[in-house]
Amino acid sequence: MDVAIIMGSDSDWKVMQKAVETLKSFDVEVDVTVASAHRTPQKVHDFVKNSDAKVFIAAAGMAAHLAGVVASFTTRPVVGVPLSSEPFQGLDALLSTVQMPGGIPVATMAVGGAKNAALFAVEILAVGDESLSKKLSAYRKKMVEEVESKSEKIQKSFLEMN
Amino acid sequence: MDVAIIMGSDSDWKVMQKAVETLKSFDVEVDVTVASAHRTPQKVHDFVKNSDAKVFIAAAGMAAHLAGVVASFTTRPVVGVPLSSEPFQGLDALLSTVQMPGGIPVATMAVGGAKNAALFAVEILAVGDESLSKKLSAYRKKMVEEVESKSEKIQKSFLEMN
Amino acid sequence: MDVAIIMGSDSDWKVMQKAVETLKSFDVEVDVTVASAHRTPQKVHDFVKNSDAKVFIAAAGMAAHLAGVVASFTTRPVVGVPLSSEPFQGLDALLSTVQMPGGIPVATMAVGGAKNAALFAVEILAVGDESLSKKLSAYRKKMVEEVESKSEKIQKSFLEMN
Amino acid sequence: MDVAIIMGSDSDWKVMQKAVETLKSFDVEVDVTVASAHRTPQKVHDFVKNSDAKVFIAAAGMAAHLAGVVASFTTRPVVGVPLSSEPFQGLDALLSTVQMPGGIPVATMAVGGAKNAALFAVEILAVGDESLSKKLSAYRKKMVEEVESKSEKIQKSFLEMN
Amino acid sequence: MDVAIIMGSDSDWKVMQKAVETLKSFDVEVDVTVASAHRTPQKVHDFVKNSDAKVFIAAAGMAAHLAGVVASFTTRPVVGVPLSSEPFQGLDALLSTVQMPGGIPVATMAVGGAKNAALFAVEILAVGDESLSKKLSAYRKKMVEEVESKSEKIQKSFLEMN
Amino acid sequence: MDVAIIMGSDSDWKVMQKAVETLKSFDVEVDVTVASAHRTPQKVHDFVKNSDAKVFIAAAGMAAHLAGVVASFTTRPVVGVPLSSEPFQGLDALLSTVQMPGGIPVATMAVGGAKNAALFAVEILAVGDESLSKKLSAYRKKMVEEVESKSEKIQKSFLEMN
Amino acid sequence: MDVAIIMGSDSDWKVMQKAVETLKSFDVEVDVTVASAHRTPQKVHDFVKNSDAKVFIAAAGMAAHLAGVVASFTTRPVVGVPLSSEPFQGLDALLSTVQMPGGIPVATMAVGGAKNAALFAVEILAVGDESLSKKLSAYRKKMVEEVESKSEKIQKSFLEMN
Amino acid sequence: MDVAIIMGSDSDWKVMQKAVETLKSFDVEVDVTVASAHRTPQKVHDFVKNSDAKVFIAAAGMAAHLAGVVASFTTRPVVGVPLSSEPFQGLDALLSTVQMPGGIPVATMAVGGAKNAALFAVEILAVGDESLSKKLSAYRKKMVEEVESKSEKIQKSFLEMN
Repeated sequence: MDVAIIMGSDSDWKVMQKAVETLKSFDVEVDVTVASAHRTPQKVHDFVKNSDAKVFIAAAGMAAHLAGVVASFTTRPVVGVPLSSEPFQGLDALLSTVQMPGGIPVATMAVGGAKNAALFAVEILAVGDESLSKKLSAYRKKMVEEVESKSEKIQKSFLEMN
Repeated sequence: MDVAIIMGSDSDWKVMQKAVETLKSFDVEVDVTVASAHRTPQKVHDFVKNSDAKVFIAAAGMAAHLAGVVASFTTRPVVGVPLSSEPFQGLDALLSTVQMPGGIPVATMAVGGAKNAALFAVEILAVGDESLSKKLSAYRKKMVEEVESKSEKIQKSFLEMN
Repeated sequence: MDVAIIMGSDSDWKVMQKAVETLKSFDVEVDVTVASAHRTPQKVHDFVKNSDAKVFIAAAGMAAHLAGVVASFTTRPVVGVPLSSEPFQGLDALLSTVQMPGGIPVATMAVGGAKNAALFAVEILAVGDESLSKKLSAYRKKMVEEVESKSEKIQKSFLEMN
Repeated sequence: MDVAIIMGSDSDWKVMQKAVETLKSFDVEVDVTVASAHRTPQKVHDFVKNSDAKVFIAAAGMAAHLAGVVASFTTRPVVGVPLSSEPFQGLDALLSTVQMPGGIPVATMAVGGAKNAALFAVEILAVGDESLSKKLSAYRKKMVEEVESKSEKIQKSFLEMN
Repeated sequence: MDVAIIMGSDSDWKVMQKAVETLKSFDVEVDVTVASAHRTPQKVHDFVKNSDAKVFIAAAGMAAHLAGVVASFTTRPVVGVPLSSEPFQGLDALLSTVQMPGGIPVATMAVGGAKNAALFAVEILAVGDESLSKKLSAYRKKMVEEVESKSEKIQKSFLEMN
Repeated sequence: MDVAIIMGSDSDWKVMQKAVETLKSFDVEVDVTVASAHRTPQKVHDFVKNSDAKVFIAAAGMAAHLAGVVASFTTRPVVGVPLSSEPFQGLDALLSTVQMPGGIPVATMAVGGAKNAALFAVEILAVGDESLSKKLSAYRKKMVEEVESKSEKIQKSFLEMN
Repeated sequence: MDVAIIMGSDSDWKVMQKAVETLKSFDVEVDVTVASAHRTPQKVHDFVKNSDAKVFIAAAGMAAHLAGVVASFTTRPVVGVPLSSEPFQGLDALLSTVQMPGGIPVATMAVGGAKNAALFAVEILAVGDESLSKKLSAYRKKMVEEVESKSEKIQKSFLEMN
Repeated sequence: MDVAIIMGSDSDWKVMQKAVETLKSFDVEVDVTVASAHRTPQKVHDFVKNSDAKVFIAAAGMAAHLAGVVASFTTRPVVGVPLSSEPFQGLDALLSTVQMPGGIPVATMAVGGAKNAALFAVEILAVGDESLSKKLSAYRKKMVEEVESKSEKIQKSFLEMN
C-alpha cells in the first residue's frame, strides 16, 4: 500500500474523496478507513500498526487529535488535514493538528486541504520514484495551462466591459 | 486511589503542583505521572487502563491531546487543564482540550487552572461523600473571609488617598 | 434529583434537549428550568439553593455568566455548555464559561456540547454507582460498533470509485 | 454617594486607583470595595442593593462576570472595565463584559480603561449638573494643550535630526 | 432632545430601529440621522456640535470610528454600538469602538446591541429623573415575568418528553 | 498603462470587477490578468517585469502571497486586496497581505476592498495629475450627497414610526 | 512639502522616527506633527486642510481612527501605520486602520511598519519622478547585497558546526 | 544533497539551527541559505531551481511567503516552519504558510517547529531508506526513555511533598 487515509467520521468522506481522486489520478495505491481517535482508539492503533502504508493522511475536525495519534504510532510521514466544523470553522482543528510538540511531526495542510494532502503524499513517494516525479511535473504544467485559459476568459469578460 | 494526575511534560509540574497541594488539603489520595499522548502513547494507555482512580486530571500544552486520549480509555470523569505555551499562550491547548466530539467528554478548566481542576475533582468525589462536601463548604467560607480581608486592605489604601 | 439543567433562554432548549434525551437514556433523573443570570438573578439563586441535584448543567450564550453564577451558589459539580450565537459563534460564550478564577470551577464542554454535558454528568454519578458505570461501558461499545458500521459504508463507497 | 467602584480582586486596585484619582479630581464622591461575583456573590448582591450610588464601575479579569452581575441587581448605569490577565490578555474579560444579552446593558470600556470609566461616570453625572459639565470642558481643553506641548517636544526632536 | 442616534449607513437602520422603539416605549425624546465619520465628517461635526441631546448613541460597522469621532466633539455620554458585517462579523467594529484611548470614553455595547444602547441611555437619563427610574424597574419586572413564562413553556415541552 | 490588476484566480473577478468599473469611471487606463503566485510564478514575474503600469493592484485569498510577490518584482506602488474565503473569511488573506517585512511595502485595503483599491490607485495617479485630483473631489462631493439622501430616507422612515 | 507624518501620541515617535530617517535618506521633504483624532480633532482637521503634502502617513494605536480621519479630510493618498499596544498588540489598531468602508481608502502597512510606510510614500512620489525611481532601484539592490552578506555569515556559522 | 534549508532572514538562524543539529544527528546531508521571498526573489528562484535537494525546509515570519514561493518552483516536498515575531507571535506566519491553495502543498509544522521539520524531512527520506527508518525507531525509543526518566524525577519531587 502506498497511502492510507484515515478519517475521524464518515461525514469527512465528502471532503476526503478529493484526496482519493487525486491519488488515483497518479496511479498511487490508496486505502481508506473511518476511525476516531476518541471513540475507537484501539482501531486507530491496530490500523496504523498493521498497515504497510508508506504515507498516512489523517483528517479530522474540532479537537482534531487523529493525525497526532496516528503519528504517535508510526515513523512514516503523517499528513494532517484539519476539517472545518461549526462554530469555529476549523481554527480548533488547525491548531489541534499543527501545534504538535517536538519529536512527533505532523505535516499540516490548509483547512479542508484534501487535494493538497494527496499531492504532498505523491511528492513524498516521488522522492524515490522518477516516473511519479515526471507525472508531478506534468500536473504542474497542466495547472499553468488551466490558469492561462481562465485568464483568457476573464480578459474576454474584461474587454466586453469597454 | 481517588485522583490520578497525568502531565504531558515534566515542565508542567510547576503548574500542576498546585493541584496536588489542593487535593492534599482535602485529604484526597492522589497519584502523579508524566506521560505524553504523542511520545509515549503506550504508557498513557497502560497507566489509564491499570489505574483505579475515580477521577483523572490531564494537563498538557500546544496541541493538547492528552485529556482527550485519557478520556478515550476510560469512562471515569476526565478533567482537562490546558497549559499556556509560546506563542499562542494556551489558545491552542484550550481548543484542543475543550472541543471534544460528541461521545467522549472532557471537563475543561481555564488555561493553567490547576487549582480548579483539583477543586472540581473534589466536588465530584463529594457527590458521594458527605464529609468531603462539608470540607468544600468550609473552603468556600474561608474564601469569603479572604476576599473580605483583601477588601479591607484596599479600603485602607483608598482612605489614605483622601 | 440527579441532574438539574438550567438554560439562560428558551431558545437554548433546541440544543439542550439532546442533554435531556441522553440523561433519560441512562435512566438518570433530570429537571429543567429557564433562568437568566442577568434578567432573573434571584430565580437562579433560589433554584440552585433549593435544588437537591447532585450535578448542575448550565447552558448559555454570549457573555455566558450562567454556569459561573450557578457555581458561585453551590459546591456541587457544575458543567457549563457554551452556546453559539451571532456574531462571535460561541467564542464569547466559551471564554465566559471556561476562564473561571481560582476557587470556583466550571467543567466546560465544547460549544454546543449538550450531549457531552449529559454524558459527563453520568460519569460523575457513575463514580458511586456501579450499574451506571456498566451502562457507560455499554454506551462506549455501541459507539465503536457505530463507527465500524460507518467505516464499512465509506469502504463500500470507496470501492465503488474503482 | 455618586460613584461606587467594585473590583473582583485586590490585585485590580493598581489599575483602578486611576479611576479613583480621576473621580476625585472632579470632586466626585466615590466608594470602593472588593467583591467577587464568584467567590462572594452574596456580598456583591448586598453591596449593590444597599448602595445609593448613582453610577457603578465594575472591574474584573478572565471570565469577567462582575459588571454583568452588578447590572442584574440595579437599574443604575453600570460601567464595565475588563482587565487584562494571563494568558488571553483581556480578550476573555472584554467578551465576558461587553457581550451582554438584551435587557441588561453594561457600558464597556477598553481593556484596562480605568480612567475612561471614571470620565464616563462623570459624563453621566454631568448630564444633570452644569458645573460638572464645565469641569469636563476644562478637562478637554487641558488635554488639547497637553497634546500640543507633546507635539512641540516631538517637533524639536524632529528638527534636531536635520 | 434627550437622545440622538447617529448611524454610519442607512443599512444600519434595520438594527437601530430597535433602539428607537425601546426609547419611545420609555417616552424618551429621540432624534435620528445618518452621518458617516469618513464620508461626511463635516456633517458628523455639525450634527453633534448643534445638537442639544443629553446622550448620543452612535452605531457603525467595520473600522467603526463613528462613536469615537462623536465623542471627540462632545462631553455628553456617547454610547457605541458596533455592528456586524462581512467578513469579520463585528470583531473589527467592536475593537474600533471599545479600544478608545484615555481621555475620550465610549460606552460600548455588545455587537448589534441596539436595544441595550437605548436602555443604557434611559438609565443615564434616569439618574436625574425618578419617574424614568420607576419605568426601568417596571421594565425589569416585566422581563422576569417573560422569562418565567418562557420557562413554563419549556417545562411543558420537557414533561411531554417523558 | 496606468493601472494593472492581477488576480490569483478567475473566481476573484466577481469582486475585482468593481475596481475596473471604478477606474473606468475616472477614465484611468486599466489592464487585467489572472496569475497565481503559486501555480504560475513565472507568469507573475513576466507580467510585472514587462508591464509599464504605474500602479499595480493585486488581489488574492487564503495564503495571499500575490501582492507581496508582485511587490518583490517592482518598485511601483502595489495595492493589495485580501479576499475572503472559507473557512477563515479573509483573516488569513489579510495577515498574508499586510504583514510584509521591512523593505517591500504593500498598501493593504480592507478584505474585499476592490473599490477602495481603485480609488487609492486614482489618488496615487492624481498626485501628479490636477484634473484627476478634481475628479476625486467631485467624487467625494457626490458621496456626501448620497449619504444625505440616504439620511433623508431614514428620517422619513423614522417619522413614520411616530 | 512631500510627506506629512501625523502621530496620535508622542510615544509613537520612537517607532515613526524610522519613517523620517527613511524619507530623508531619499531626500524627500517631510513634516511631523502629533495630533490625536480623539483628543484634538480640530487640530487634525486644520493640519490636513492646511497642508500641501502630497502624501500623508498617519500612525496610531488601539482604536486607531487617525488614518481614517485624515483620509476623510483629503483626497491625497493616506498611508496608515497601526501601532502595537497592550493588551491586543496591534490587532485592534490593524482592524481599525484597514477595515475602511468603500469610498475612503487607507493604505495600511504592517503593525509597526514605519519604514515601509516611508518607502511606500517614496514609491508614490516616484511615479512622477524618474530620479526618485532610480533611487528606489538602488535601494533594492542594496537590500539584495545585505541579504547576501547575511547569508554568508550564516553559511560560515553553519560550516563551523561540522 | 538530501535537505536544503532556506531562511527568510539571518535572525531565523537561532531557531533553525535546531533543524540542522537534528538532521546531522541522523547523518543526513544538509545545506543552508538565507534568501527572502520579497527582498531577493531571484535568489530564491535560482537556489531552488539549481538545488538537487530531495526535501526543502523553508522558515519565515510575518507574511511568511517563503515556503509557498519555494513550493511554486519545485515538485519536491516543501516543509514550512512559521516563525513567531512581534506583534502577532506567529499567527500571521502560520496562516501565511499553511493556507496554501489547491495544487501547491506546503507541509506546515508548529510555529517555531524547527526540530519537527527536520524529523519530518528524515521521515520522508526514510520511506526509501531502511537504515534511516531504523534510526527513527531508535530515536522514538530514546524519547520514551527520556519521558520515563522525567516522570521519575517528578515522582520523586511529588513524594517529597508528602
